[in-house]
Amino acid sequence: MQNPNVSVDCVVFGFDGQKLNVLLIEQEDFGQACRFALPGDHLEEDEDLDQSAARVLRELTGLSGLYLQQCGTFGDPSRVKDPKDLPWLTHVRKDPTARVITVAYYALIKMTDFNLLASSFAARAFWHDANEMPRLAFDHNTIFDQALTTLRRELSELRVGFELLPNKFTLSQMQAVHEAILNSNFDKRNFRKKALNDQWVVPLDEKQTGVVHKPARLYMRNPERAQN
Amino acid sequence: MQNPNVSVDCVVFGFDGQKLNVLLIEQEDFGQACRFALPGDHLEEDEDLDQSAARVLRELTGLSGLYLQQCGTFGDPSRVKDPKDLPWLTHVRKDPTARVITVAYYALIKMTDFNLLASSFAARAFWHDANEMPRLAFDHNTIFDQALTTLRRELSELRVGFELLPNKFTLSQMQAVHEAILNSNFDKRNFRKKALNDQWVVPLDEKQTGVVHKPARLYMRNPERAQN
Repeated sequence: MQNPNVSVDCVVFGFDGQKLNVLLIEQEDFGQACRFALPGDHLEEDEDLDQSAARVLRELTGLSGLYLQQCGTFGDPSRVKDPKDLPWLTHVRKDPTARVITVAYYALIKMTDFNLLASSFAARAFWHDANEMPRLAFDHNTIFDQALTTLRRELSELRVGFELLPNKFTLSQMQAVHEAILNSNFDKRNFRKKALNDQWVVPLDEKQTGVVHKPARLYMRNPERAQN
Repeated sequence: MQNPNVSVDCVVFGFDGQKLNVLLIEQEDFGQACRFALPGDHLEEDEDLDQSAARVLRELTGLSGLYLQQCGTFGDPSRVKDPKDLPWLTHVRKDPTARVITVAYYALIKMTDFNLLASSFAARAFWHDANEMPRLAFDHNTIFDQALTTLRRELSELRVGFELLPNKFTLSQMQAVHEAILNSNFDKRNFRKKALNDQWVVPLDEKQTGVVHKPARLYMRNPERAQN
């Protein structure tokens, strides 16, 4: 049985080597104004919140094995009362505008490591450019914004980001990750200086192989800066 | 009307100049094994989560005007089913073990800035040494641990801590805050070196006044390191 008052929503960020994307679903069309939404569902009575987030993601998008972390709980009394969402709510809920408190989760993955599969619940699951977000159902734009703020803070504290890189990487590869997540362009020399001065990375006595241009030096994460 | 499935709980850390304390309430005595708990209550249907946390704290302890931040939501299906909590639950709830998902908030304050007032709901509200926690009701020890972990991380990133100090402070005062929150003793010279090398603070051209010992130099927070 599902809890009518509590749900989970997942913000999955995907890096394609260049850009930051976010995983959305398209709701079935009942005439609602916004059909794009974050993957989410109500909590089942016998599952923990973390389990619920993992299940929802697996059921709606086929993704499993992600490391999902909470990034906030949203409980505005009017968050499922917006007229734009009514046509969909009326089709899927017994009491369409009954209050729902939602627990948000986020994850950061390499898109090439996962395959999307839409489920029967969602018309489709797809990646969308995280820097050009469309209007989403409910308060999902607010939830997305908070997840992005959390992601950027975690990046600045070096708690995320490295999982998108190979164990040995060039500073250009690292810069691409930071540029994608922060939606910025950095001067190459300044970025290198900061990464080295602040000891984000440790230089290795190795260079790239199999590249046509001049091979760049390889680096690894500085284990002494690994936080958490 | 209260939401039977959703509550808020508050972890208020108080600094007394030397030690870190946490605000607890004592439940009315219905024969339950653990009567100490974090201040918390069910969500009212017309209030947002932040409003709820502020109200609960005001009603149970008389504290208001605190800056409360979410630090996690707890939803283990068995979190209010522990036999130790049954005598109290049976007295205060219609359906004693109905599932409750709780949103945790935390705050850090100077104890001298606030006065505690116990309410009719709680037998008393009181400060307890945060480094010698007793067994608490429900999963409140787990919630406390997560709040403390969050607080320590925020301190290490200099997002909290300064609110416990005057605008101009000595490095000894700053060290006392860090020692209390981290429950550690630091070597004075190493602490000074780290605070200055990592530019946590900016030295002022001023010294303490009105002290009997040799007046120490005053410092202020480094505005360039002020994060978020």
